[in-house]
Amino acid sequence: MRDEKIREIVESVQDRLGRPSIGNAVSASWLSTEHARRGHTAQIKTPRDVAPLIDHTLLKPTATERDILELCREADEHGFASVCVNPYWLPTADKTLGDSPVMLCTVVGFPLGANLTVIKAEEANRCIESGADELDMVANVGRLKEHNWEAAFDDISAVVDIAGGVPVKVIIETALLDEEEIVAACAISSIAGAVYVKTSTGFASGGATVEAVSLMSLAVENKLGVKASGGVGSFNTAMAMIRAGATRIGASNSINIIRG
Amino acid sequence: MRDEKIREIVESVQDRLGRPSIGNAVSASWLSTEHARRGHTAQIKTPRDVAPLIDHTLLKPTATERDILELCREADEHGFASVCVNPYWLPTADKTLGDSPVMLCTVVGFPLGANLTVIKAEEANRCIESGADELDMVANVGRLKEHNWEAAFDDISAVVDIAGGVPVKVIIETALLDEEEIVAACAISSIAGAVYVKTSTGFASGGATVEAVSLMSLAVENKLGVKASGGVGSFNTAMAMIRAGATRIGASNSINIIRG
Repeated sequence: MRDEKIREIVESVQDRLGRPSIGNAVSASWLSTEHARRGHTAQIKTPRDVAPLIDHTLLKPTATERDILELCREADEHGFASVCVNPYWLPTADKTLGDSPVMLCTVVGFPLGANLTVIKAEEANRCIESGADELDMVANVGRLKEHNWEAAFDDISAVVDIAGGVPVKVIIETALLDEEEIVAACAISSIAGAVYVKTSTGFASGGATVEAVSLMSLAVENKLGVKASGGVGSFNTAMAMIRAGATRIGASNSINIIRG
Repeated sequence: MRDEKIREIVESVQDRLGRPSIGNAVSASWLSTEHARRGHTAQIKTPRDVAPLIDHTLLKPTATERDILELCREADEHGFASVCVNPYWLPTADKTLGDSPVMLCTVVGFPLGANLTVIKAEEANRCIESGADELDMVANVGRLKEHNWEAAFDDISAVVDIAGGVPVKVIIETALLDEEEIVAACAISSIAGAVYVKTSTGFASGGATVEAVSLMSLAVENKLGVKASGGVGSFNTAMAMIRAGATRIGASNSINIIRG
């Protein structure tokens, strides 16, 4: 998609929602670490250099307490950005990480995004109470498919608003959207005050693609981060995503990535 | 698995949880319709006779408002037991069904079951407020895998308790469990006061099997219903499930089933 067309879609969404990007209220310390992380993408020389960009992820429903403990240990050992776990395991992960610099990331409305908006907001709230440092929420894909930008915005906005200073990444599930919907979803997320757009849940028909990451990167104009997730399991794939504009990687095979 | 072994597992779970089946508090009118529905399974002669056993289901994240309206229209036309939709669409479906005899079913903690228990309970609560007549909740599969029956029980129990008179079906995701875990999950659901155990979310590696339905049916000893879901898309498959003990069918291809 040409730059001009992307601008046109973004502006059309802004017009329909009646407001430009409102930014967000995330903490200055988070932003400063995040900027360092983004700058870091240019200096990656070895597979290990990717570690600070990786959300070390375990979202399988079969995950046990023991698996969560192991995930936290690995993240701490290898210096991943965060562990990303289902909400149920937040108390366990929070306790296990203790004062480790590894952040605690979780998911909201995951993986279908079709919960009542009020429940997504309450889930965000409880996740933060349970120790979450970052929230990866799933957008309402159905509303995006029917081009009801207002309803999609309200849904994201409710989570961002209740999250306060806690950064929200919006999972737009690119495998289910066409190009116009991907760009619109990025614009909506930006206007709602999210700080990241994220490609995939890992539970849909497809995961991150270079094309989707590149399009999202252009749509958010470097104002938001882009997280590539879903099927990113090797150093080469991770680098392809980073070159396309990804500033964070979500992965279950993180150790394979940093081993190159 | 032999009957004797099934009894042994059920009793061991009852011992560990320190209580026998506590039954449930669902409404008398629901129970009477449900008994008629169960009795009906013996009298199925044509594909159309399966209709009153079917939860007509649309849980894809891409579903739009238009799809939900169509689902409700179909359910009303063919006399399905219920429509089953994601929570976001409850207000739409509730309004559309109006005073139709078709019930409104939704899902809680779906499809991973790894939400905070307090959020599952609050989701159940909000779903009922939004018009849900039945709740299909996903058990905490990780806790079942680690044989922590107590934690799995607490999770289900919180939803059943808040649901009050609204019937709860517990999705145990049989594709991810071994036989012992399937039997234990049924016993736990029964003790917690659920009225149905359900095989699958339709989002895991596998759906309903005759073996799983049969095992679940033996484990709950006809005290609870058994819902077969996930991949049940033809009359022949539906009948195989019913013969194995299923008293309700969850299906997206419901119309294909009743056309035989």
